[in-house]
Amino acid sequence: MQKTLTILGSTGSIGRQTLEVAEHLDIKVRALSANRSIDLLEEQVRKFAPELVAVYDERAADELRTRIHDTNTRIVHGRDGQIEAARESGADVIVTAIAGQAGLEPTLAALKTGKRIALANKEPLVCAGDLVMKTAREHNAEIIPVDSEHSAIFQCLVSDLLKNDKADGCLLSHVIEHSKRIRKIILTASGGPFRGLSGAELENITPEQALKHPNWNMGKKITIDSATLMNKGLELIEAMHLFSISPDRIEVIIHPESIVHSMVELVDGSIIAQLSNPDMRQPIQYALTFPERLPSLTKQLDLIRLKTLTFEKPDLDAFPCLRLAYKAAKLGTQACAALNQANEEAVELFLQKKIGFNEIPKLIESALDASGC
Amino acid sequence: MQKTLTILGSTGSIGRQTLEVAEHLDIKVRALSANRSIDLLEEQVRKFAPELVAVYDERAADELRTRIHDTNTRIVHGRDGQIEAARESGADVIVTAIAGQAGLEPTLAALKTGKRIALANKEPLVCAGDLVMKTAREHNAEIIPVDSEHSAIFQCLVSDLLKNDKADGCLLSHVIEHSKRIRKIILTASGGPFRGLSGAELENITPEQALKHPNWNMGKKITIDSATLMNKGLELIEAMHLFSISPDRIEVIIHPESIVHSMVELVDGSIIAQLSNPDMRQPIQYALTFPERLPSLTKQLDLIRLKTLTFEKPDLDAFPCLRLAYKAAKLGTQACAALNQANEEAVELFLQKKIGFNEIPKLIESALDASGC
Repeated sequence: MQKTLTILGSTGSIGRQTLEVAEHLDIKVRALSANRSIDLLEEQVRKFAPELVAVYDERAADELRTRIHDTNTRIVHGRDGQIEAARESGADVIVTAIAGQAGLEPTLAALKTGKRIALANKEPLVCAGDLVMKTAREHNAEIIPVDSEHSAIFQCLVSDLLKNDKADGCLLSHVIEHSKRIRKIILTASGGPFRGLSGAELENITPEQALKHPNWNMGKKITIDSATLMNKGLELIEAMHLFSISPDRIEVIIHPESIVHSMVELVDGSIIAQLSNPDMRQPIQYALTFPERLPSLTKQLDLIRLKTLTFEKPDLDAFPCLRLAYKAAKLGTQACAALNQANEEAVELFLQKKIGFNEIPKLIESALDASGC
Repeated sequence: MQKTLTILGSTGSIGRQTLEVAEHLDIKVRALSANRSIDLLEEQVRKFAPELVAVYDERAADELRTRIHDTNTRIVHGRDGQIEAARESGADVIVTAIAGQAGLEPTLAALKTGKRIALANKEPLVCAGDLVMKTAREHNAEIIPVDSEHSAIFQCLVSDLLKNDKADGCLLSHVIEHSKRIRKIILTASGGPFRGLSGAELENITPEQALKHPNWNMGKKITIDSATLMNKGLELIEAMHLFSISPDRIEVIIHPESIVHSMVELVDGSIIAQLSNPDMRQPIQYALTFPERLPSLTKQLDLIRLKTLTFEKPDLDAFPCLRLAYKAAKLGTQACAALNQANEEAVELFLQKKIGFNEIPKLIESALDASGC
């Protein structure tokens, strides 16, 4: 691969796996950014020799600068530093993997380069989807989704991108133009660790229990979001923006094995699905290599050994977060932002054991009502 | 739809379903051909008013001519008549749905028009795959497969046809050029009505039992082929030619629900699958409308109601026909022709109750050995 890469959020789960893929494909890393995990950042600098590293925390930036004075890597700090990493690295692909709403400004800066954005940070789309997509269109940036579900939808939709469709840099807008061929998007969800439990049974769930996800090894916030199904709710909003489709044409379906990462149902009754072992390195690599495909680190899927794929309806009574996300999606951007904000706060309170599991949706619902959307 | 259509084999299962789709899409029918089912042909003539009808049997042709003297439809007969229907109808799409090896000459005539061929007749590919594909290339004919499995593979592969790939009329050759991205094709099989039975248990199967297929309603020959798994063997050979892929990169997997019609595994570990309710009108329509998709007669798939999709390894001891097809595929065209010929004869003998179910593979194996391939 001759491509060059910048990663915003290189010490998180997606960032680390992106670096595994970069090493596998021998992709040159131009810039990295992280919050303050300088032990890991130091390792990454020594291994990948980026020209620029942005550390959000100023003191951590100073410390890292001292530690790696023997390298040619330049260290910057703060929000400006992140934006510089996005804007000035000159990389062919910018992976946006900063967690939470904090990723909005860097994501916008990345989109303004007009390069390819491998989008792993979902909150900017959730809170400001219209702005994000408008910025992408204005700067002709090519967004390739990294979330396994959205990558799956993208992989399925490309199947219906015609050979004659003129597709310029901003491929997604062409996917969108042709969405008249789509009847609906089927977004799959593992159901999380508490699938099958009733609301009453969820009452006393502890953070420790909620942090054990059956299929995916991810960060804390997203793992709790998976347990409440809010993660799927945020993905619903993300999909609505990315693929310019109304929420009532997105169906969430529980698929506990996490093998079918999502599907697209076309108007003629044909469904195109994307399957693989659950391994984020597959969608990460596809976002880097698209339209090519190259051998990856992902283990081959053995359907015979797997034997069964199952599907069931989500339980919106036990998991009201998903219902709230549908509601916010229909209400619009402001409601989605309120939903996301309230969720970030509620998850933090839950992790600190200040509220119970079932209070997460209650807090969000109150916030949604109070937002006046 | 502004397209026009010719159907070779209009009174068989695929032919009749193609006419349902033509009616649904309001496609003008230019020419029809059939063997001798003139009652049905007369109905079709009165309903679709084709300009030309080829009846293979001369006496049946004469009788039909008398019956429909009040119409403007011209009747021709014999092999020449079929070829005339293929060659001179001027239709945009020619559906080749003649059963068995008899379809070879008309298929070649259809390919020589350089139009789109919706290929439903698998034996020409099985017996003379090299010639069929060479003829398609030389005349720049666009083959779109109609078999549900090959349509599924095509639908999945188009997903990996790049927007920048120059694709002219002969789309398949471009699919093929890009097959370096394919690790393997996963051809699904229902397993037929006798899935799970041992060789000993298959010993006394009667034609009546074998003619009951669990998922698909098809002609007699293909239903017996499904029961012996030879149908999957023939499809394996068909796929090898259509997608220019060696048989050891085609895996047959038993999927009793017949919902996933086939899959393509790409080199990066991603699998693209095509699903729908088992209804031949979906792949037939896609072959007519490609690259567009239009609402079809196929019932929407309800995965939640379906609950489970299962996959298992085929039992090559109980169903040696599939093993024989792999063997012939590796040996080459002559062996494939011998296999197909022996199978047509053996199935006929079985339907006449002259041989038992387990003698079908034995006869084929002897023929394959005797062919000297």
